[in-house]
Amino acid sequence: MGDNTFGDIFTITSFGESHGKVIGVVVDGMPAGLKVDLELIQNELNMRKPGQSKFSTQRKEFDKFEILSGVFKGFTTGAPLCLIIKNQAIESSSYEKVKNKLRPSHSDYSALKKFGGYADYRGSGRFSGRITASYVMAGALAKQLLMQYNIRIFAYTKSIGNISDSKKYSFDAYNEILSQREKSPIRALDSDLSCKMEEQIKEVKKAQDSIGGKIKCVITNVPPGIGGPVFNNIESSISKAIFSIPSIKAIEFGMGFKATEMKGSEHNDPWILKNNTIQTSKNDSGGIIGGISTGMPINFTVAVKPTASIGISQKTVNIETMEEDTILIEGEHDPCIVPRAIVVIEAMTAIVLVDYLLKEGKIPLILNPYEGKKI
Amino acid sequence: MGDNTFGDIFTITSFGESHGKVIGVVVDGMPAGLKVDLELIQNELNMRKPGQSKFSTQRKEFDKFEILSGVFKGFTTGAPLCLIIKNQAIESSSYEKVKNKLRPSHSDYSALKKFGGYADYRGSGRFSGRITASYVMAGALAKQLLMQYNIRIFAYTKSIGNISDSKKYSFDAYNEILSQREKSPIRALDSDLSCKMEEQIKEVKKAQDSIGGKIKCVITNVPPGIGGPVFNNIESSISKAIFSIPSIKAIEFGMGFKATEMKGSEHNDPWILKNNTIQTSKNDSGGIIGGISTGMPINFTVAVKPTASIGISQKTVNIETMEEDTILIEGEHDPCIVPRAIVVIEAMTAIVLVDYLLKEGKIPLILNPYEGKKI
Amino acid sequence: MGDNTFGDIFTITSFGESHGKVIGVVVDGMPAGLKVDLELIQNELNMRKPGQSKFSTQRKEFDKFEILSGVFKGFTTGAPLCLIIKNQAIESSSYEKVKNKLRPSHSDYSALKKFGGYADYRGSGRFSGRITASYVMAGALAKQLLMQYNIRIFAYTKSIGNISDSKKYSFDAYNEILSQREKSPIRALDSDLSCKMEEQIKEVKKAQDSIGGKIKCVITNVPPGIGGPVFNNIESSISKAIFSIPSIKAIEFGMGFKATEMKGSEHNDPWILKNNTIQTSKNDSGGIIGGISTGMPINFTVAVKPTASIGISQKTVNIETMEEDTILIEGEHDPCIVPRAIVVIEAMTAIVLVDYLLKEGKIPLILNPYEGKKI
Amino acid sequence: MGDNTFGDIFTITSFGESHGKVIGVVVDGMPAGLKVDLELIQNELNMRKPGQSKFSTQRKEFDKFEILSGVFKGFTTGAPLCLIIKNQAIESSSYEKVKNKLRPSHSDYSALKKFGGYADYRGSGRFSGRITASYVMAGALAKQLLMQYNIRIFAYTKSIGNISDSKKYSFDAYNEILSQREKSPIRALDSDLSCKMEEQIKEVKKAQDSIGGKIKCVITNVPPGIGGPVFNNIESSISKAIFSIPSIKAIEFGMGFKATEMKGSEHNDPWILKNNTIQTSKNDSGGIIGGISTGMPINFTVAVKPTASIGISQKTVNIETMEEDTILIEGEHDPCIVPRAIVVIEAMTAIVLVDYLLKEGKIPLILNPYEGKKI
Repeated sequence: MGDNTFGDIFTITSFGESHGKVIGVVVDGMPAGLKVDLELIQNELNMRKPGQSKFSTQRKEFDKFEILSGVFKGFTTGAPLCLIIKNQAIESSSYEKVKNKLRPSHSDYSALKKFGGYADYRGSGRFSGRITASYVMAGALAKQLLMQYNIRIFAYTKSIGNISDSKKYSFDAYNEILSQREKSPIRALDSDLSCKMEEQIKEVKKAQDSIGGKIKCVITNVPPGIGGPVFNNIESSISKAIFSIPSIKAIEFGMGFKATEMKGSEHNDPWILKNNTIQTSKNDSGGIIGGISTGMPINFTVAVKPTASIGISQKTVNIETMEEDTILIEGEHDPCIVPRAIVVIEAMTAIVLVDYLLKEGKIPLILNPYEGKKI
Repeated sequence: MGDNTFGDIFTITSFGESHGKVIGVVVDGMPAGLKVDLELIQNELNMRKPGQSKFSTQRKEFDKFEILSGVFKGFTTGAPLCLIIKNQAIESSSYEKVKNKLRPSHSDYSALKKFGGYADYRGSGRFSGRITASYVMAGALAKQLLMQYNIRIFAYTKSIGNISDSKKYSFDAYNEILSQREKSPIRALDSDLSCKMEEQIKEVKKAQDSIGGKIKCVITNVPPGIGGPVFNNIESSISKAIFSIPSIKAIEFGMGFKATEMKGSEHNDPWILKNNTIQTSKNDSGGIIGGISTGMPINFTVAVKPTASIGISQKTVNIETMEEDTILIEGEHDPCIVPRAIVVIEAMTAIVLVDYLLKEGKIPLILNPYEGKKI
Repeated sequence: MGDNTFGDIFTITSFGESHGKVIGVVVDGMPAGLKVDLELIQNELNMRKPGQSKFSTQRKEFDKFEILSGVFKGFTTGAPLCLIIKNQAIESSSYEKVKNKLRPSHSDYSALKKFGGYADYRGSGRFSGRITASYVMAGALAKQLLMQYNIRIFAYTKSIGNISDSKKYSFDAYNEILSQREKSPIRALDSDLSCKMEEQIKEVKKAQDSIGGKIKCVITNVPPGIGGPVFNNIESSISKAIFSIPSIKAIEFGMGFKATEMKGSEHNDPWILKNNTIQTSKNDSGGIIGGISTGMPINFTVAVKPTASIGISQKTVNIETMEEDTILIEGEHDPCIVPRAIVVIEAMTAIVLVDYLLKEGKIPLILNPYEGKKI
Repeated sequence: MGDNTFGDIFTITSFGESHGKVIGVVVDGMPAGLKVDLELIQNELNMRKPGQSKFSTQRKEFDKFEILSGVFKGFTTGAPLCLIIKNQAIESSSYEKVKNKLRPSHSDYSALKKFGGYADYRGSGRFSGRITASYVMAGALAKQLLMQYNIRIFAYTKSIGNISDSKKYSFDAYNEILSQREKSPIRALDSDLSCKMEEQIKEVKKAQDSIGGKIKCVITNVPPGIGGPVFNNIESSISKAIFSIPSIKAIEFGMGFKATEMKGSEHNDPWILKNNTIQTSKNDSGGIIGGISTGMPINFTVAVKPTASIGISQKTVNIETMEEDTILIEGEHDPCIVPRAIVVIEAMTAIVLVDYLLKEGKIPLILNPYEGKKI
C-alpha cells in the first residue's frame, strides 16, 4: 500500500506540499450517484484554513478547491475524484535562512534521515499541517455520503492547556450542538470555558509560545455490528487514521485511561432495553466492544501537542557545521492548532466509517440507481 | 486485506478460537536464514499463558506450540511459517448455560450483530484474549530477528488501578531491567510498588471483581529515519497493532495526554550533540517526530480496561426472550490481565518494526547468505 | 500484502511444503452461515490428488483434509477457516542425491537466488505443484458459496500436445457437461478426442518424457456489472490468480490471440435482445468488456507447459563444483499435469469471483441470517 | 486497495477522464534523489499521443504534462508525485447523439451496469484508452529509475492482423534495436514487414474498419532471484498490470501457448555456464521459472484486439427504447492501436519491476544519498 494512500475500498491518496504548487487528494471508491455539495466541501475547508481568527496563523490562503475528475453533471460517477487547492502564499525565504538548523520537535531531522536531504523543506513541505487540507476535502465527501444514512460526526475542543470541559453532552440534537460550537471561536461547547480557553491562547501568543489541548469526537447512528475482532477492529482503524494527523500524540476510546483505575463492576456496560432496542446504560466502552460497533455513540478523545513553531530562541544543532547552536523561528505561527484540527479529526473519522460501510455492504455502489438511460 | 491479516511485507494471519481445536498463526515475509530459537518462542508463550500465578485464570493450558511449515533444518526458508497451539482445556458447558444472555462489556452483542449468531461463543471464541497467543508466537519470531540488529522491545506494568509507577528508567542496560521485571510476579519494575499492585489485585479478586492498569513499552536502538509523514507514520502503525489486542482502550506516545497541558517551550525537544550524534535532550516526543523515528527510544503507554468477566451479578438482556435479566458468570477469571498482556504488547510492536525494517530495505531477504550449495 | 496471501476481502493464505508436515490454507472473509459441505471439499481434492490414474504421479497421498478453525456446529462463523492436509509419502532421498544439480526448467536456481539456499528443496518444497492443494481447499469453499447464487465454474482439457478440441459447447446444462467430463480420465469433453489425448500421454510416458496442453474455463451466471476499468478489472484479477498456479505460461480471454488477426467488424460483439435482456450475439469478448462482466459466460483458455520432471538425461550445472554436468531425475512423474490442473484452475477462479462479489456488496456478510438466538 | 491504485510499495493512482479536465496520476514510493528527466517523460507521452501519424486518431492533443508535487529543485523528494495533462480537444457532441445506443464491444453496457448510468460517457470517459497516458507518465519515471540499474524494457509490434514477425532479435544492443524501431512508423523491427503491416492498416482504414495485432516485450538485465512462488510471482504481477490496459485480451510468457504442443525434453531450459555465470541455453521459460527471474531476458507477448470503434453500421440495442437498433459511430478513429500501445506496455512493465526491486530491497529509498545538508 502506498505511503500516501489510506483505506481499503474507499481510499484517499494525498499529495502536495505546503509551499508547492498544490495540496491535493484522489478519492477512490466513492459510489456513483452522489450529488456533490460543493458548498459543504468549501465550508469544511474554511474551518481548517489559516487566518480565520486572531488565534491562527495569518498566512493568507483562500483554500479554494477545484475538482479535476470523477464528477459529471453534478454527480459522482464511480470514477476517482481528484481535488486540489492551489497554494497562494508561498513566501519561503525564512525557511532558506534556517534550513541547516534543526527546528526542535519539527520533522527536519526525521526528514533528513528518511529522505536524505531531498525533501522540500519550505513550510515543512510534506510534513506540514497544511497537508490535512487534503484530508478535509476527502472527508467532506465522506461526510456528505454518511449524512444520507443519518450518521453524524461531531468533534469539539475539550481542553486548551489545563482549561478542560468535562461536561457530558447529548449529541442527539445535532443541529443544536452544532450551533453551540459555531458560537465559539475555538469550537468549544461551553461558552464560559470557551472564553477562558481563548484567554489561555492569547496569553501564550503574547509570550510567543504555544499550547496544546484535547479534542473529543462523537459519532452517532453507526449501526451495530460494524468492524471485527482481531485486526479489522474499529479502534485500530480510527487510531491509524487519527495519528496520520500531525501533532496528535494520544487517543482514548470511551473511558480510555480512566478505565485503568476502574473496577470491572464499575466499568462494565450493563445491557438494557430502550424502545425495544438493546443498548448499554452508560457506554463507558465508547460505542465499541470487541472491535465492533454496539450501536451506541462511538466516542474518543485525542491529544494535540503544543505547536512546535514558537517565537522563542531554542537550542539546536546546525547540521552543516555539526555544532550545537540556537534557533529563532521567524514569522507568525498558530499559538494553538486545536480549533483548526477539529474538522480534520472529523474528516479522517468520516473516511474510516465510509470505508467500513462499503466493505460490509452497508452502502451500495450505486446511489439512487436508475437504469435504461444515462444522465 | 483479510480481516485477520496484519502487516504489509511481514504479515501475520491469525486463526483459531478459544475453545476450538487450535490457536494458530501464519507468519509470512520472514527472511530466509534465521536459525529459529524454539525456546525463545516457548518462553514468550509462557509469559502469556493462563494459570501462571494466583493472579491469572486457572484454565490449564500448556500452550505448547508446533511449527507446521516454513522451517527446514532449523532455519527459516523464506516460506510462510505456520505455528499452532492445540487447545486442551475445552470445558464449554458454562457458556452453554448463559449463551442467550449478553455478558456486559463482552462481545456477545457485537458478535451477534456482525456474525448473525453463527460465531463460536464458547470462551468468547474468536473474541477471546486467548487469540493473542497467535500474536505472541509471531512476535517471538519478530523479536528474534530484531535482536540480530540489537533492537530491543521492553514492556512493563506501569500501573494497576491507582497504584502507578511514574519513575523514569534507563533501558540501555536491557538485561538488568529484564531481571528486575522477572522478580515481579506482575511484571512491574519497582519492587515496593509491585507489592502494592499485587495487594490491589488480591483485593479485587477476593471481591470477585477485576481491575485495569497501564503498560509502558520502550523500544531501543531503532535507527533514525524509519516511518513517514502522512499515512505511513509509526504512531499509526503501532496504534493499529496495539488496538488489535482485546481490552486496550487508549494509547499515548511520549508525553501523550500530558502534552496537552504543556507549552511549546516546555514540550519541544531541543536537539543536542552526544558523542557526535544528533539526539534530543529529553525525548518528550517519544522517539517519533513527523511519524518517523528520531533514533531516541520509542515509547508509549497503553490503557488496559478491567477484565469484563467478573463474579458479580450484573444487569443484562436475554436475547431469546428479549427481556431484561441478570447474569452471573461462573468460573474463575483473571482479576487483572495486565501482567499477561505485557508480552502481547511487545509481540505486536515487534511485528510492526520488522515490517517497517523490511519495507525500508533495512533487513535483507536472506540473512547470512551463502550461495553455491544448499543446506 | 504477504507473498502467500491472495485477495482483497475474501483472502486465502497458503502455507506448507511438498515434503513438510502439511499443506494448508487460511480462508478469511467467508461470510457467516454457510453450511460447510465436507464431501464437496474432499471431492475437489480427489480431482487434484496424485495417483488417480496411470497418467499421474504414483505418489501415494490420500489428501484427507482437516478443518482447524472457523466452523462451529457445521456452519462457517465469520472467523477464518484453516484447512490442512497432512503429507504422507515423504520420501526425500532422491532429492538429496541431486540437490546440487539444477533441474532444467525447475525452480532450483530461482529458489537459490531468492532464498539463498535455505529453501526446502525436497519435492521442490514451496514450488511444488502440491501447493495447489491449498488452493483447491479454499476454492471448494468458494465454489460452494457461488453455487448458492447459481454461479458455476467449469474447466476442461481443451488440448494435449497437438490434439485439440475446438468444438463450441453449451454450458447452460451444467450437470450434463459435468457428467460428460467425468467419463474422460483426462477431463476432456469429446470422447474420441479424449482417447487420442490419452494415447498421446501414454506415448510420452513410455518415452520418459512429458507433454503440455490447454485448459478452457467457463463461468456462467456472473451478473453483469462486476469488475471495473483500470486496475480493478476482472481480466487482471483472473490472470493474476491463474499465474499463481505452477506451469501456467499463458492466458487468453474470449478470442484471445485470434482477435489479433480479426477486423473490428468481425470481432465486435453486437448487442441483441434475448428474452428482453441485453446480450451479445457471439461473446467474442469472453464475457468481459471494459474489465467488467457483461452477463455473458466468462471464458478463458490457459497454457500448461510440459512437466519439467522427465526421465531423460539433461544438461545442467552443478552449483557446488560450478561445472557443467548432466542430471537424471529419478522416480515416477506426471507425464502431463493438465487433467489434475483442471480443478486448480476452477478453484482460483472461484476465489477471484467470491472476492469480487463480496467487494461489490453482492454477497452479504451473513448468509441466512437469524437473530435473537445463537446456534 | 483502491480500484485505481496499482502496486505494493511503488504505487500509481490514476484519475481523470477522456473528456474531463485532466488525465492524471499520483506516483507514490519513488525514492528520493532521482533527477527527474522531463524530456524523457514528454518523449514517452509523444509515443502514445493521438495524431502522430496517418494511422492514429486525428484528435488534437499536445499531451503536455505538468508536475504538481513531489519534485523539488529538480529531484524527487520521496513525497508522492502528481502529474497531469490537461485535455484540450473536448468535442463531445457526437457522444451525446448516440449515448443511448450501446456501442458494440465498447464498455457502455458494462459501465451502465457498474455505475448505474452516472459514468461520464464522453469519449468513453474512464474506459478510454486515453487513460493510459497516466500509466505512461508513471512508467516514464519508473523507466528512468530502472535505467540507473541498466534494466531496459523494450516492446515492439510483432504482428498486425496476419502479418507477423517471428524473427528472434538480440536485445543486448539496446540503442541499435531502439533506432531500428524508430525507423518504423508502426514500431516494428523488420523494415519489410513494417511496410506490409502499414499496408494492412491502410486497407482496413479505407474500409472504415480496424485491425488487431501482437506486441512483444523484452526486459533485459533483471537480476536473478526477483519474485516468488505462489502469489508473489512475476507472471501474475506483469499480467495483472498488462490487462489493466484497454484492448488487451491475452498474454503469454516465453513459449506461451506453443509450450502446450511441446514435450518436456523440447521445452526444458538446460542450464549452462557462460562467462562463469549460470544461464539457460534457450530461455523458453521467458526469463521466469517458479515465478522468479532467472537472470535471462524476461519476455512476453500480448494480444491487442481490433479497435472497437469502426465507421461501419453495427447492430445494437437502444437502452432508452429497449429495442434493437443500428449504430454508426461518427468521427475518425484509430484503425489500429498497436503502435500507440507499445509505450503503454513498456510503462506498466516498468512500474511492476520498480515495485519488485523496492520490495526486495534492491533499490534504496535514497538515491545518491548525501547527508549533513539540504539541497
